[in-house]
Amino acid sequence: MNARNTLKVNELGHLEIGGVDVTALKKEYGTPLYVMDKAYIEDMCNVYSKTLQTEYGNGLISYASKAFSCLEIYRIVNSLGLGADVVSGGELYTAVKAGFDTSKLCFHGNNKTEAELIMALENNVGTIVIDAYSEAEKLNSIAKSFNKVQDVLIRINPGVEAHTHHFIQTAKIDSKFGFSIENGDALEIVKYVLTKENLKLKGLHCHIGSQIFEKKSFALAVDKMIDFYKIVKDTLNYEFDVLNLGGGFGIWYSDGDAKINTSQYSEYIKTIAQTLNKSIKDKKVKKPYLILEPGRSIVGEAGITLYTVGNIKEIKGVKNYAAIDGGMFDNPRFALYQAKYTVCAAEKMNEPTNITYTIAGKCCESGDIIAEDCKLPTLNENDLLAVFSTGAYNYSMASNYNRNLIPPVVMVKDGSSYYAVKPQTYEDLIRNDI
Amino acid sequence: MNARNTLKVNELGHLEIGGVDVTALKKEYGTPLYVMDKAYIEDMCNVYSKTLQTEYGNGLISYASKAFSCLEIYRIVNSLGLGADVVSGGELYTAVKAGFDTSKLCFHGNNKTEAELIMALENNVGTIVIDAYSEAEKLNSIAKSFNKVQDVLIRINPGVEAHTHHFIQTAKIDSKFGFSIENGDALEIVKYVLTKENLKLKGLHCHIGSQIFEKKSFALAVDKMIDFYKIVKDTLNYEFDVLNLGGGFGIWYSDGDAKINTSQYSEYIKTIAQTLNKSIKDKKVKKPYLILEPGRSIVGEAGITLYTVGNIKEIKGVKNYAAIDGGMFDNPRFALYQAKYTVCAAEKMNEPTNITYTIAGKCCESGDIIAEDCKLPTLNENDLLAVFSTGAYNYSMASNYNRNLIPPVVMVKDGSSYYAVKPQTYEDLIRNDI
Repeated sequence: MNARNTLKVNELGHLEIGGVDVTALKKEYGTPLYVMDKAYIEDMCNVYSKTLQTEYGNGLISYASKAFSCLEIYRIVNSLGLGADVVSGGELYTAVKAGFDTSKLCFHGNNKTEAELIMALENNVGTIVIDAYSEAEKLNSIAKSFNKVQDVLIRINPGVEAHTHHFIQTAKIDSKFGFSIENGDALEIVKYVLTKENLKLKGLHCHIGSQIFEKKSFALAVDKMIDFYKIVKDTLNYEFDVLNLGGGFGIWYSDGDAKINTSQYSEYIKTIAQTLNKSIKDKKVKKPYLILEPGRSIVGEAGITLYTVGNIKEIKGVKNYAAIDGGMFDNPRFALYQAKYTVCAAEKMNEPTNITYTIAGKCCESGDIIAEDCKLPTLNENDLLAVFSTGAYNYSMASNYNRNLIPPVVMVKDGSSYYAVKPQTYEDLIRNDI
Repeated sequence: MNARNTLKVNELGHLEIGGVDVTALKKEYGTPLYVMDKAYIEDMCNVYSKTLQTEYGNGLISYASKAFSCLEIYRIVNSLGLGADVVSGGELYTAVKAGFDTSKLCFHGNNKTEAELIMALENNVGTIVIDAYSEAEKLNSIAKSFNKVQDVLIRINPGVEAHTHHFIQTAKIDSKFGFSIENGDALEIVKYVLTKENLKLKGLHCHIGSQIFEKKSFALAVDKMIDFYKIVKDTLNYEFDVLNLGGGFGIWYSDGDAKINTSQYSEYIKTIAQTLNKSIKDKKVKKPYLILEPGRSIVGEAGITLYTVGNIKEIKGVKNYAAIDGGMFDNPRFALYQAKYTVCAAEKMNEPTNITYTIAGKCCESGDIIAEDCKLPTLNENDLLAVFSTGAYNYSMASNYNRNLIPPVVMVKDGSSYYAVKPQTYEDLIRNDI
């Protein structure tokens, strides 16, 4: 357990988050329940923003809202002066309804529909990231019909792929996203977009991977991008104003991951800022406005999920299963990626953890597992479990699989709690049925 | 392509389903769109029911509704006299709202909550399948409070595991479901449930796997179960009235799968019936009421999903990507299981298929792929694609990931079409937000 910020064990031996005992949360809201530590989210936003300002200056932290999207998170992020990424009409709609400053929105995606692009123009989205020739053409026409010149970036593959503790340089990027620098595709699309009268090409965007702990991979990406900025300057006599380096900063899920302190995330920014400052100086490239897009690292560790233990099954010589009232409908990440999670018995935090359990969900599917090989105290029915680091990509990937209801989301801060997202009801399940 | 039943190519070279040209469906409903062939569903229900009656006699086909659950499917299945399985309060709620005969419902699941068990009693659910000691105890108390005796089965692991073309016999079943015959757990839970005054133990249930093509695996499961029925008869002097053999019959997804004719599904039933008749005769066990639970095979091949092609990206020497307006939010089965699907250009059915495409979804995730290595005609933006065999576990697993909207479901039959599930709206996304 990575007990930090407001996560702690109180004098009753209970887990506490945002100054609220999990027992109180269970009583007030029931389980399964997503709980989000608002102070943690705010801290991360502020740490990122301030470090960017002090270490680099001109730039913006843009929250990658696909990690966790609802009205309340856009309100929080907007109030702290950050920007946000959206990747669909639905995210854009939610941001707009939350009153987000749309000039600070960046619209990503490998296949935005025409309706989504129109919606972006209607709502004065600050930046749209182009990911195809046909998209550039379509967007140019739409912008023309709005009598606007739309700021755009282009998604570029710098030839760096990073994930967790590894990164590679590669000339052949196999991705549905972006245009490769190395095979010449990137320069061609830059030339093409520059011909579009209703598009203003502000700069380029790249995103090298996710759940990355290796700072060098970001430094390498910076160098590759600025090398290319210089190529564009030299060959096309065009200088970019903006560099969007994407996100991908890793978070702690389980023992295999680094336990980095909140403030240590600023080290990513420092590394990027220093590398970028050196690179633009060396290559005599204009200093770009720097956009960084953390998502998981802002909300991931802010979240825990609370579950109640139901049936317990000991299969002699095989395994102990403890089944919970949630499952792959509220957290499909084990089923999708064999993602590892850390689980605790949230009201027995001081008891010895000497039994190994597999935590099974309630879906009718053998693969519906939340975590394997969890060292826990002896569990009984109705025990409360907490799973850590569920703030990113859990609520956002939740489904009604097996017609289970998506759990509500509660924000906690300074001893108080409130719904960010209320519980679904059975009526919601058939709302669109004839 | 496994063009059968109403799926055919019409004189315009367009795909047709239920007598409706896909072009008409696209125009009326837009894309992405789930389309379900109602005649196929009805055929499968009738084939199964009639074969069970003629080959075995006393029994029930119970539609495993987790494969595809909405009001309309319960109405169709109920009107044809079948039963249905439910695995959650949400499925039960939907079946009840559809007016399903609840005496023909069977409630499964490894971890039904107390609220779900109460809901089952309130709605007079015919059978509840017990999957834990604590569940038996809880259900007995609830039944007592309702002054009822509840019919129950127990989920048993017969030591057969089957999937597609393989099956194994195993003594050590590692599953969150059921009780193993071989290690003695099954006999113990039978004894325990027999002590419960408000539970009537009608028989046992097993489910050996999914997407199974090997009939022998079902025959083996029958023998194992009847062996155990005899053990219970001999040791406890108790004879079961019911045998529920679960489902798991395979369907065609892609070239690797058998292309079996609708009526050939009756071969599964015949094999099971013949084996069972022989087994009960050999072992002098009372002929049980036989319940079979097909889900995927009733609705899977009935469904296609229609998508519109958006951005196309040719990465020289690597791959051709065609991006669609759907993705893992409407079909997560490639991301979850690397499931293979067959894709066609639904308005270019007679054109030569000489280009290889990877069909990418629109989610901001590299793993958001629908199908790889698809041989298709040269694709252009706005081309219509159809993906086959998407009737099972696609709508039921759909999510709002990336805040994309879940596509509507349209039923087609005899040249007509109608909504089974209407389109989600952006308003739906924030309905429960504060």
